Amino acid sequence: MDGLKPLPAYLIQRYHGWKATTFAENEAWHRKLAEEGQRPRAMVISCCDSRVHVTSIFGAEQGEFFIHRNIANLVPPYEPDGDHHGTSAAIEYAVESLGVAHIIVLGHSRCGGVQGCYDMCSGNAPELEKKSSFVGRWMDILRPGFEGLPDGSESERLEALEHASIRISLSNLTTFPFVRHAIEEGRLSLHGLYNDIAKGDLWALSTETDEFTAV
Amino acid sequence: MDGLKPLPAYLIQRYHGWKATTFAENEAWHRKLAEEGQRPRAMVISCCDSRVHVTSIFGAEQGEFFIHRNIANLVPPYEPDGDHHGTSAAIEYAVESLGVAHIIVLGHSRCGGVQGCYDMCSGNAPELEKKSSFVGRWMDILRPGFEGLPDGSESERLEALEHASIRISLSNLTTFPFVRHAIEEGRLSLHGLYNDIAKGDLWALSTETDEFTAV
Amino acid sequence: MDGLKPLPAYLIQRYHGWKATTFAENEAWHRKLAEEGQRPRAMVISCCDSRVHVTSIFGAEQGEFFIHRNIANLVPPYEPDGDHHGTSAAIEYAVESLGVAHIIVLGHSRCGGVQGCYDMCSGNAPELEKKSSFVGRWMDILRPGFEGLPDGSESERLEALEHASIRISLSNLTTFPFVRHAIEEGRLSLHGLYNDIAKGDLWALSTETDEFTAV
Amino acid sequence: MDGLKPLPAYLIQRYHGWKATTFAENEAWHRKLAEEGQRPRAMVISCCDSRVHVTSIFGAEQGEFFIHRNIANLVPPYEPDGDHHGTSAAIEYAVESLGVAHIIVLGHSRCGGVQGCYDMCSGNAPELEKKSSFVGRWMDILRPGFEGLPDGSESERLEALEHASIRISLSNLTTFPFVRHAIEEGRLSLHGLYNDIAKGDLWALSTETDEFTAV
Repeated sequence: MDGLKPLPAYLIQRYHGWKATTFAENEAWHRKLAEEGQRPRAMVISCCDSRVHVTSIFGAEQGEFFIHRNIANLVPPYEPDGDHHGTSAAIEYAVESLGVAHIIVLGHSRCGGVQGCYDMCSGNAPELEKKSSFVGRWMDILRPGFEGLPDGSESERLEALEHASIRISLSNLTTFPFVRHAIEEGRLSLHGLYNDIAKGDLWALSTETDEFTAV
Repeated sequence: MDGLKPLPAYLIQRYHGWKATTFAENEAWHRKLAEEGQRPRAMVISCCDSRVHVTSIFGAEQGEFFIHRNIANLVPPYEPDGDHHGTSAAIEYAVESLGVAHIIVLGHSRCGGVQGCYDMCSGNAPELEKKSSFVGRWMDILRPGFEGLPDGSESERLEALEHASIRISLSNLTTFPFVRHAIEEGRLSLHGLYNDIAKGDLWALSTETDEFTAV
Repeated sequence: MDGLKPLPAYLIQRYHGWKATTFAENEAWHRKLAEEGQRPRAMVISCCDSRVHVTSIFGAEQGEFFIHRNIANLVPPYEPDGDHHGTSAAIEYAVESLGVAHIIVLGHSRCGGVQGCYDMCSGNAPELEKKSSFVGRWMDILRPGFEGLPDGSESERLEALEHASIRISLSNLTTFPFVRHAIEEGRLSLHGLYNDIAKGDLWALSTETDEFTAV
Repeated sequence: MDGLKPLPAYLIQRYHGWKATTFAENEAWHRKLAEEGQRPRAMVISCCDSRVHVTSIFGAEQGEFFIHRNIANLVPPYEPDGDHHGTSAAIEYAVESLGVAHIIVLGHSRCGGVQGCYDMCSGNAPELEKKSSFVGRWMDILRPGFEGLPDGSESERLEALEHASIRISLSNLTTFPFVRHAIEEGRLSLHGLYNDIAKGDLWALSTETDEFTAV
């Protein structure tokens, strides 16, 4: 296989350490999870960014969260066109097969994907406009968010666009018939969260004001 | 917003615990990561399955791994058709913008997505054959793996298909020009891992035998 | 060059083994680290003692820790007198140029340097009192720790002095203006650790009790 | 204590992993080392740079190398003036108390300390010329190496200065009476090594040509 290499030794060492401690302490629970299958209470849709640790922030243990991570925690609109839709497939599986009770969209500050969308929409990143740019085409999902940005400093507008990535994803979620149906039946609720990486603050989209308020 | 609800109290409580401990102990590092941007050494492509904890297995901390998670840790083939491709966008961003040195495809046992693919290809899950099934269309990526399955018990064939999900993803990765280029320049290496959830074992795809061997 | 000899064959052999395995597995990451420069998250100040393996204890890999090692992991007080100060230079470089987020002072049991200080202060090592004794003059940094030793057996007093070597180093660290400034700005945190070589135990200086407690 | 914080959780987790595996496998040897004291065969003087892993390169185990690390692996000249000399103290302890058979000076490519010396001597880093600059005053040890640099590109001259940091340290080592004495009695030999971080190559200072040749 082209480019295939052995795993770096320090990762092997760390894995053995994990196996002998964290895993050993949870062995019975792991076996039960393997035999009976997972039964997560929530699906989390967050960014791939290495600075966001969903499980750590919520002290999640094995089996608790069904986690989908993509660039800028985006959910595309409902498009049953027969193509490969990784995000839509994850949502369908979480709601239809696993019956999760919550879907949490977790955005964050200093998002490189959102920055790329901002530059692209501002005309400063022509390479992202190319049809062949996967990042550009993926960030098209957030494009509507750029149109509605308020005036302000670039940092204010960037944060507003990061917030928009969460609102748009939540809004697109409701375009999926099975999501809408689960909500109507009271089987599913949606949540929008924003994590400030530098300060460690967590903001939640308020059901009353539609603004993000500190948790 | 339809379905929007306040965050469950126990998650808010855990978050505050994290903020006061784990975050507080790493505050300076978080601030530095926020200001200077992330520089992860590896991208990990794993399953959304709630039983797989990438960061825990490798004792990873904030900033270490750029993580994309989708159903069955699949990488679709290179298709620059202008559509939304979340996985391809994540790979492009990791290799081109972040310049990660490793891409690790991490599969696991008892994978629900792989089971679905197996049932679908066996003719036991007609609903997954529908054009409107996001899970079915996503698992089409793994379909070639089913054709090549060896004879054996269902559990043996399922594990073989789980292994195939890793091999096919690694193989599809090399269809991306920028991945191939980075490999040729020695800037990137690929790794295939398989995690047995019940036993906690980790198997790596050998560069010599092309088989999975215990780490 | 006086005393220059070829490298022992067994070291050459081991190096070639490392190059063909550990290095080969990390080649892309090493190249990236070389091209983009290091960005360690922490500075570790430990003893030269051959029985202390900082990187091993923390499963650290290339690029993770900026490591200064001297006798008894000592930090001298701030003395900008224009002389050569290797430890102060390392700290200045770590904080000012690299902007590390943590400085970890790692002491250990059975420290020969601390034993020397103990003997010297007890009047049992006159040779260490000589102006020409580099070890004696270096251990003068720890002398204040001897004055404050509690009564007890020699082994208890020696361990107390080993603990003092960590406390005094942390205290002296805060006499450096750039260290104090980084702490005040929340860019840097300090940590005191003690490693029991025989038992493999790790003790941390508690922020609450100011005592060393098992990690 | 100002700035004191608890140890980050991921380091505690890794430590426990190490204790349960690497340490557990070597417990008897660790106990023996603790009870009988260390008896390293060599002293290694290397840079603090996080990209240089002395123990890894030589597959060194606990007890094998007495390691001193400072900026640019420098050894100052013999100065028995009664001040604190961390490097000289480490050398004295290694040769006089431990009786190591080898002293290995290990330099490396892309050294930030050497770059700083180069900039300072080129007049491009006035801040390093200040009396209060610990890095500048420490790099004064390498200043004579800058004078003797051959013509060439900056990268060639930087590598030559990195080589000079090894030659000067070896040369200064022989100004220590106890080092000279040990060499004369055939109890000690010196070695100069240069590690290319990007390529993983190791070069040794030849006793015949006084040039660095690939190991």
